[in-house]
Amino acid sequence: MSTIDIPADSEFGLDNLPYGVFSTADSDPRVGVRFGDNVIDLVATLNDPIFATGSLNPFMAQGLNRWIEVRTAIVDAITSGSPIVTHPIDSVTMHMPFDVADYVDFYASEHHASNLGRLFRPDAEPLLPNWKHLPVAYHGRSGTVVVSGTDIARPNGQRKAPSESSPTFGPSTRLDIEAEMGFVVGVPSDVPISPDRFAEHVFGAVIVNDWSARDIQAWEYVPLGPNLGKSFATSISPWVVPLLALESARTSTPVQDPEPLDYLRESQSWALDIDLTVTWNGHEVSRPPYKEMYWSPAQMLAHETVNGATSRTGDLFASGTISGPEKHQRGAFIELTWGGKEPVTLGDETRTFLEDGDEVVIAASAPGPNGSSIGFGDVRGKITS
Amino acid sequence: MSTIDIPADSEFGLDNLPYGVFSTADSDPRVGVRFGDNVIDLVATLNDPIFATGSLNPFMAQGLNRWIEVRTAIVDAITSGSPIVTHPIDSVTMHMPFDVADYVDFYASEHHASNLGRLFRPDAEPLLPNWKHLPVAYHGRSGTVVVSGTDIARPNGQRKAPSESSPTFGPSTRLDIEAEMGFVVGVPSDVPISPDRFAEHVFGAVIVNDWSARDIQAWEYVPLGPNLGKSFATSISPWVVPLLALESARTSTPVQDPEPLDYLRESQSWALDIDLTVTWNGHEVSRPPYKEMYWSPAQMLAHETVNGATSRTGDLFASGTISGPEKHQRGAFIELTWGGKEPVTLGDETRTFLEDGDEVVIAASAPGPNGSSIGFGDVRGKITS
Repeated sequence: MSTIDIPADSEFGLDNLPYGVFSTADSDPRVGVRFGDNVIDLVATLNDPIFATGSLNPFMAQGLNRWIEVRTAIVDAITSGSPIVTHPIDSVTMHMPFDVADYVDFYASEHHASNLGRLFRPDAEPLLPNWKHLPVAYHGRSGTVVVSGTDIARPNGQRKAPSESSPTFGPSTRLDIEAEMGFVVGVPSDVPISPDRFAEHVFGAVIVNDWSARDIQAWEYVPLGPNLGKSFATSISPWVVPLLALESARTSTPVQDPEPLDYLRESQSWALDIDLTVTWNGHEVSRPPYKEMYWSPAQMLAHETVNGATSRTGDLFASGTISGPEKHQRGAFIELTWGGKEPVTLGDETRTFLEDGDEVVIAASAPGPNGSSIGFGDVRGKITS
Repeated sequence: MSTIDIPADSEFGLDNLPYGVFSTADSDPRVGVRFGDNVIDLVATLNDPIFATGSLNPFMAQGLNRWIEVRTAIVDAITSGSPIVTHPIDSVTMHMPFDVADYVDFYASEHHASNLGRLFRPDAEPLLPNWKHLPVAYHGRSGTVVVSGTDIARPNGQRKAPSESSPTFGPSTRLDIEAEMGFVVGVPSDVPISPDRFAEHVFGAVIVNDWSARDIQAWEYVPLGPNLGKSFATSISPWVVPLLALESARTSTPVQDPEPLDYLRESQSWALDIDLTVTWNGHEVSRPPYKEMYWSPAQMLAHETVNGATSRTGDLFASGTISGPEKHQRGAFIELTWGGKEPVTLGDETRTFLEDGDEVVIAASAPGPNGSSIGFGDVRGKITS
C-alpha cells in the first residue's frame, strides 16, 4: 500500500482516471484505475466486490450518479493520503475492459466516406445521397473485439480484382487499419436515447482499430455491407476514459447542412476534440482529428436507437475511420496510400498495406481542464501470418 | 410425476425432442424438452444443474458426445416408464432458449436475392457478381433477438422515396417479415469450421422471423448494408431442434455453378428439406421451401469463419429469407406483393405490408425417420403501434 506522486503533466492525472481490467501474477482480472504510471486496485482500495468481476459491465450498469460517486471516492483516496493499493503499470497484464454486447461501427467522417467512395466506386458520386441525413453504420462482430496487444492473424478470404475472371482464396494482400474512437453504453435502455440523454447512458470512450482486409471487403460488400473483410478482429485500447473526464474536450461538429431531422439535434454537441496519432513500425504516419467528424457520438447513439432497438450494458459503437481534410490526417492506409498507389515511407522502407510482423499503434489524447491533457493511452497490434 | 402417452403422429415424438427454456408459476426459467404437448423438466428428470441456468448455452457448450448422451437418457427415461416431471405445454411460459452471442443473417436464397435485386435496383442485374461465389451475409443486432410471442412495436425511422426531395421521419409504412431458418453454435471455435465439421459445432435449428422495415432499409442500406431497417427485432421459435433430429431431412443443395472454392465444398451436404408455412392473420399466404436454398448452413458457417473469426456458444446464423421459385413460396411480403403493387387477400381484407394488430405465424416441419415428421413449432409476433 502506498500514496502516489505522479508528474504534474501526466495525461493520467486526477482529471482523467480511466478504468480498465488488469491482473497481476497474484490476482485474477479485476477493475483498476490508471493514475500516472500506476494502476489503482479498486477492489482493495474501495472494498467493493463489484470491481472484482473481471469486467466493467456491472459497474457501468449502475449509472451516472454512481459513476460520479466512485470518481469522487477515488480522488478522495488519492488526495487524502489514505492507503491505496497500486501496481506499477509495467507489472500488470491488461484485459478486455468490458464484455461487448452489440458492436456497431459508423461511417461518420465526411472525408473518409468521400475518399472511400472515390476508391470503391470510382464512376459514381463519392458521397451517397443518404450520408448527410443519417449516420450510416453497420453491425460488426462482437466476439472478435480484442484488447490492445493481441496479435492480429492475417485473414484468409475470397477476393477478385475487376481484371480477374473468377475469385481466388488466400491471405489478404491489402490488410489495413481504421483509426477510430469507440463509445460504450453503461445504462441500458428500451426506449430511444435522445442526444441530450447521451451522458446518462454512455460510460466512456476507447480508441478502436477496426482492422480491414480491403481485397476481401471490396469483393463481398455489395449489397449487404462489409462482413469478413472486418469480422476477423477489432482492437480496443485497455483504458476506458469516462465521459466525465471529457467535458473540456467538448466542441461542435462541422456545420451540418442540410439540418438534421429533429431526433438528431443536440442542444449542446457531444463532438469531441480528440487528437489521434497513427504509428507504423515506430514511424508516425497520420494524425487523425476526431473533431472533424461530421456526426457526434450522441447523434450516432440517437440514430441507432430511434427505431426502438434496445441498448444493453456493453454495447460498443465506434465512429468509423477518422480522416481529416489533409492527407496526413487520414486514418486508414487505403486512403493514405490512395488505394495502394502512393506508398508511405517508413525510415528505409515503404509500405502500402500491412506486412507480416508490422505493428500499428494508435494513440489519442484530449484537452482536460486548466490546460491539462487527458490520455487514452494507445491500442496496438502486430500482424502475424 | 407421470409417464406420458402422445399421439403416434405427433411432430414432437421420440425422434424430435427439441430443447427450450420454460418457466411455470412455481419455477424459474429452466431447460425442458418437448414431447408431444408436454414439456419434460430436465432439471428434475435428469437431476443435472446445467439445465437450471435459464439458458441452453452451458449445455450446448458441452459438445456432441454429451448431446448424444443426454438425448439417449431422455429417450430412456420416456420409454422405461421411469418417473418424469412434465408440464402441459399450455401451462408453461417459454423464454429465449439461449443467449445470443453474435447474430449473422445470410442471403442464401437465389430466388429471394433475385427478387430483391429487381425491386431495390430495378436498373441493374438482380444477382450481383459475388452472389454465386460466396454466401453473402451481414451481422445483425443480437440484443434484439426475441422469443416467439413477443409483440413487435412498429419501428420509427427515416425514409425517402425516390420521388421525395428530402427524407421524413415516422413509423415505417412498409413493415415486412422474412421467413428464415436459424442455426445456433454450441461448441466454440478459434479456427475455421469446415463444412464437414458442422455437426460438431452446431447444436440445432430454430425458425426465424427477421422483421424488416422496407422503407427504412431502402434509404439507409448503401453502402454498408441494412441496419435500422432490421435492428428493431428478430423473432425466433422457442424450441431448438437438435441437428441429431434432422438426419432424415438432409438433402442436396441445388446445383452450384460455378463450383464453389474448396473451403465451401461439402462431402455430404447439410442442405435440409424443411417446409415452412407463413400465416397472416390466420390465412396461409406462403409455403417457403428451405431445400431450395442455394447455400447450405454448413457452407454458411464455413464462410463466416474462414477469415479466422472465432465462434462462440450462442452464435446464431440465419439463412436469409427463404423463397422458392413459385410466387406462393416467397418468404417476404415485399416479394409476395411485388413491392406492394399486388396485394394479397386475407379473407375479406387485402394487405401489402403489416398493419397494427396483424399477427404473423411461421411454422416449419421436416421429414423424420420411418415416415415421421419433425416439428419446429412456430414463431409468432403481433404488430403494435
